Amino acid sequence: SAPSDSTPAKVQELNVYEINERDRGSPAFLKLSQKDVNSLGDLIPFTNKIYSGCLQKRLGITAGICILIKHEPEKKGDRYEAIFSFYFGGYGHIAVQGPYLTYEDTYLAVTGGSGIFEGAYGQVKLQQLVFPFKLFYTFYLKGIPDLPSELLAPPVTPSPAVEPSAAAKACEAGATVSNFTN
Amino acid sequence: SAPSDSTPAKVQELNVYEINERDRGSPAFLKLSQKDVNSLGDLIPFTNKIYSGCLQKRLGITAGICILIKHEPEKKGDRYEAIFSFYFGGYGHIAVQGPYLTYEDTYLAVTGGSGIFEGAYGQVKLQQLVFPFKLFYTFYLKGIPDLPSELLAPPVTPSPAVEPSAAAKACEAGATVSNFTN
Amino acid sequence: SAPSDSTPAKVQELNVYEINERDRGSPAFLKLSQKDVNSLGDLIPFTNKIYSGCLQKRLGITAGICILIKHEPEKKGDRYEAIFSFYFGGYGHIAVQGPYLTYEDTYLAVTGGSGIFEGAYGQVKLQQLVFPFKLFYTFYLKGIPDLPSELLAPPVTPSPAVEPSAAAKACEAGATVSNFTN
Repeated sequence: SAPSDSTPAKVQELNVYEINERDRGSPAFLKLSQKDVNSLGDLIPFTNKIYSGCLQKRLGITAGICILIKHEPEKKGDRYEAIFSFYFGGYGHIAVQGPYLTYEDTYLAVTGGSGIFEGAYGQVKLQQLVFPFKLFYTFYLKGIPDLPSELLAPPVTPSPAVEPSAAAKACEAGATVSNFTN
Repeated sequence: SAPSDSTPAKVQELNVYEINERDRGSPAFLKLSQKDVNSLGDLIPFTNKIYSGCLQKRLGITAGICILIKHEPEKKGDRYEAIFSFYFGGYGHIAVQGPYLTYEDTYLAVTGGSGIFEGAYGQVKLQQLVFPFKLFYTFYLKGIPDLPSELLAPPVTPSPAVEPSAAAKACEAGATVSNFTN
Repeated sequence: SAPSDSTPAKVQELNVYEINERDRGSPAFLKLSQKDVNSLGDLIPFTNKIYSGCLQKRLGITAGICILIKHEPEKKGDRYEAIFSFYFGGYGHIAVQGPYLTYEDTYLAVTGGSGIFEGAYGQVKLQQLVFPFKLFYTFYLKGIPDLPSELLAPPVTPSPAVEPSAAAKACEAGATVSNFTN
């Protein structure tokens, strides 16, 4: 079927790695269901580090919450509703909401943004590389000006083995975006 | 007052029933306020089934959380802030946020979507039919291509007595959307 | 860099004061981290009153949740992820998501709205005047018709000393918007 709008909006791809380096006390798994198995009622606030797709720059953090919706034993995993933001230091942030399944890739909605991401909409693909410590995201962004080249360097091909550069991990000068979020 | 944009965006209506069939362990009423009466501090993660407005097709589920904001004894009800998504199987999802009042109909914001709902915005009317087990929603969607006819069949008139077809309830072949969410 | 869309969308500024008058049992500080210091795992549902920027009209309330992300001792404060709505009585609501830092001003994303705010997008600046009781917000709204003049009266300059008019505080006739949210 034809789109309702005459001119298709420009789509910009943005790649980001999210890595849990186990130094932020995250996630906080709140077993509020009080059941032995993961169940509706469990809440999981979290915050991890994010790096550029090329893994040469520390960008900032993620921040938000996963709501456990359903344990799926036959898939050996769980369905969560995820509501969180990606922080890109002085560039601003992107807010997202949607499914996080521990056993397959998903698409979440981009619900808005600030700074250079003001007015952003579209979706983001979530790929899990090492559960639950290493994820790769591909944003398909509309509604915003051209992204800075610093964020658009070709991504390292996602694999469980990828690691940020030592300089980015150490947040050295030149290996972070300006005023990176921590 | 005149709209700021010259061409009004096309609005597509989409009707959905949400039904709690009491087989998903939902809702999880977390009495974190530790007060006898419903109070700020109580959190209610939930997940129910959704059916097409014609009640002939199982679509998927809702997934999210209600935040208890205020008990309103004079209205014999409660105000919640609701943040959740509607899952339509292989079609994708719609994210929403806004008021859920147990005593009157409300409008929530559509904050985004994925799949065929990528870029969706607008609002959704929530009508309660049987508290808190049966609800009827009318989405007023903008920003997306024409919806598939399968989702647009004329809705059954909302009433407390409505029930999904036996085939849809049983998730029989032909009575679900493709890859329906469960 | 040039914007991707040829015609820049019209931006409307909207000023709002949020005041905690300590009569709503808010916030509910849920110390779910079970740690002495504020930590990831703590959740803070809240609801405060909102007034027009001119402080002559009671508009409604805020309603939502702050997710504690990180205690920052060197900044003597905390980072939260805030997900909430602003209710403007019969006018509808605006949903937002983004950073709330107790030690500096931030910008949150406008993720959607209802009523006269249906289809709203953009961002909102949060300025803290008296932690955590008095805040000033400047919305930069796109995607909506011209706002009613009642909401656009020139704001009182933000300062810790500002107070709503006695009539607005008492919700007197003429000192609220129609069907103000409470």
